[in-house]
Amino acid sequence: MKAWEKNIRKVVPYVPGEQPKGDRLIKLNTNENPYPPAPGVQKAMREMDYDRFRKYPDPAVTDLVHALAEYYDLGDDQIFVGVGSDDVIAMAFMTFFNSEKPVLFPDVSYSFYKVWADLFQIPFETPALDEDFRIRPEDYYRENGGVIFPNPNAPTGLLLSLDAVEDILKHNQDVVVIVDEAYVDFGGESARTLLDRYENLLVVQTFSKSRSMAGMRIGFAMGHPDLIKALNDVKYSYNSYTMNMPSQILGVEAVKDDAYFKETLAKIIDTREWSKLKLRELGFSFPDSKSNFIFATHERVPAEKIFEALKAEQIYVRYFKQPRLDNYLRITIGTREEMEALFAFLGEFLATAH
Amino acid sequence: MKAWEKNIRKVVPYVPGEQPKGDRLIKLNTNENPYPPAPGVQKAMREMDYDRFRKYPDPAVTDLVHALAEYYDLGDDQIFVGVGSDDVIAMAFMTFFNSEKPVLFPDVSYSFYKVWADLFQIPFETPALDEDFRIRPEDYYRENGGVIFPNPNAPTGLLLSLDAVEDILKHNQDVVVIVDEAYVDFGGESARTLLDRYENLLVVQTFSKSRSMAGMRIGFAMGHPDLIKALNDVKYSYNSYTMNMPSQILGVEAVKDDAYFKETLAKIIDTREWSKLKLRELGFSFPDSKSNFIFATHERVPAEKIFEALKAEQIYVRYFKQPRLDNYLRITIGTREEMEALFAFLGEFLATAH
Repeated sequence: MKAWEKNIRKVVPYVPGEQPKGDRLIKLNTNENPYPPAPGVQKAMREMDYDRFRKYPDPAVTDLVHALAEYYDLGDDQIFVGVGSDDVIAMAFMTFFNSEKPVLFPDVSYSFYKVWADLFQIPFETPALDEDFRIRPEDYYRENGGVIFPNPNAPTGLLLSLDAVEDILKHNQDVVVIVDEAYVDFGGESARTLLDRYENLLVVQTFSKSRSMAGMRIGFAMGHPDLIKALNDVKYSYNSYTMNMPSQILGVEAVKDDAYFKETLAKIIDTREWSKLKLRELGFSFPDSKSNFIFATHERVPAEKIFEALKAEQIYVRYFKQPRLDNYLRITIGTREEMEALFAFLGEFLATAH
Repeated sequence: MKAWEKNIRKVVPYVPGEQPKGDRLIKLNTNENPYPPAPGVQKAMREMDYDRFRKYPDPAVTDLVHALAEYYDLGDDQIFVGVGSDDVIAMAFMTFFNSEKPVLFPDVSYSFYKVWADLFQIPFETPALDEDFRIRPEDYYRENGGVIFPNPNAPTGLLLSLDAVEDILKHNQDVVVIVDEAYVDFGGESARTLLDRYENLLVVQTFSKSRSMAGMRIGFAMGHPDLIKALNDVKYSYNSYTMNMPSQILGVEAVKDDAYFKETLAKIIDTREWSKLKLRELGFSFPDSKSNFIFATHERVPAEKIFEALKAEQIYVRYFKQPRLDNYLRITIGTREEMEALFAFLGEFLATAH
């Protein structure tokens, strides 16, 4: 080992889903939206004044913060924005989880939580989901340094009721509780409505899934002004200008077009419900997803085998080679046509595979 | 104090330069480039396929990394990119400065270094510049947990010779040494040429100044593949997708147009040298800047008074109310016309001010 290597932080990084290139492939592996962003986004991009690129962007991201505050009927001081919800949650870990006590999150959950805890040297414990992959609120009654969970959960797609979320909050008023709602727009009920009553609640959402803008990297948090100020203090201690000018301008356009947003969501939810029927016909079972993906296992053929067969066919889904998950596939809901192609191939493949 | 506040990280954030709004103002306070980005950037922006925004961007930023590697004659595995050089340096602090020994940087320097050290709880010491604001290489001979300095330094604009940089490297082969070259394109000699001999050297640059793209947030580091891999491991443990799609695409366009880059640099350097003559005529003195700003003090009128008078006139320069610096103004080099307007006002103002 070289001398200077002794001071290097050793980490086991998060592994993002594959980003295969090519036009003919069907990409159902990273929970992207199959529809383009709102038309106003394209228009604003074409009209953007490129001379302004030479100047620093607004460090406070005032316009986008205001658009989100208006949309969600909150104050501007209740919104924090970042470079995707990963940036927002990473900053939240750094800001709120400075305790000797363990932070709690489910064992089967967004796998980045463990990576952030390791990176920031935060102790953590991971209560196990029950045998039906459900979060048990009573597992979060114990003493801890903070709580975070996705709702709906990933990769299961299961939704915790607002009552259950409030139950967790009631038992955790001395720490910050983060509800990661990356997928909530696809049929969940946001904990945003609890913000009035729980000033230790932070609700995180993203433009990457329901607003079709994964490529722009926009995430945001909603919470009490004290929490938002603490997040901003850390942000200004890390990188004053995290969000570039196009994201700030195009993000506002995405928020403005509520009709397009709702229309796109309705199409995806419709395709998801139809996909559930098709998957059952094909011999799959799955938790009842309220997200834009389905976490499915086949009655006979191992998930890894199906995953490989699909990949050979240029159809990408997500496979986690991990205990409890390794006989499941996480399938993103694409367009109706993409799902039809998937099911057509699966019909043929499963008829002979074993 | 509320119970959950006890776990919040307390920080004193960096305060970025003002971003005043308005078209008639002259903005010489944040070292932005007065010229727009390369014409290819505009063209690529107009032609960008907005449907691709729905997908995640390439987490490895392959094309931009490759363009920079080619331009600087390095391997692709020697380049790391981030959301501005602030993001790159923040990650470098987190990655490389994990030692009980203090990290060293000059007392008068980029004020964000101290903020990052505080945020990541890294011990540090700040050797004083000499009475002419020069870095003394011998101050960096002592035992330490890492070294970082800007070259040219900010806010002085003074350049350390490549020999002096190498001297610091020779005395610090057991720790990572970061040379922050945000301003090097305006007349400095990059330490990039020392990378072959010092595998513990990390050279950081940015698109925000010389490439007119502060609004796009693009910074990069050049170094030994082991250093770059360590940075990428931390990046993938923080946020896999830091750089959005427009930055990746438009960044490549900026690198491609070398003729425009050099022409813009020559204009700014020319205006800087002419500005030095004018400032001397007006009674200012200053370290001999090799950057795109001049750090100037007036023989008679206090800097703060000049700062306020300029601001009232909608001319923004930077003023640091800090010991040693509080009688200086940091004046960004704008267009020839902007500098003429500045000097015209100063000529009148200084004739009567005292």
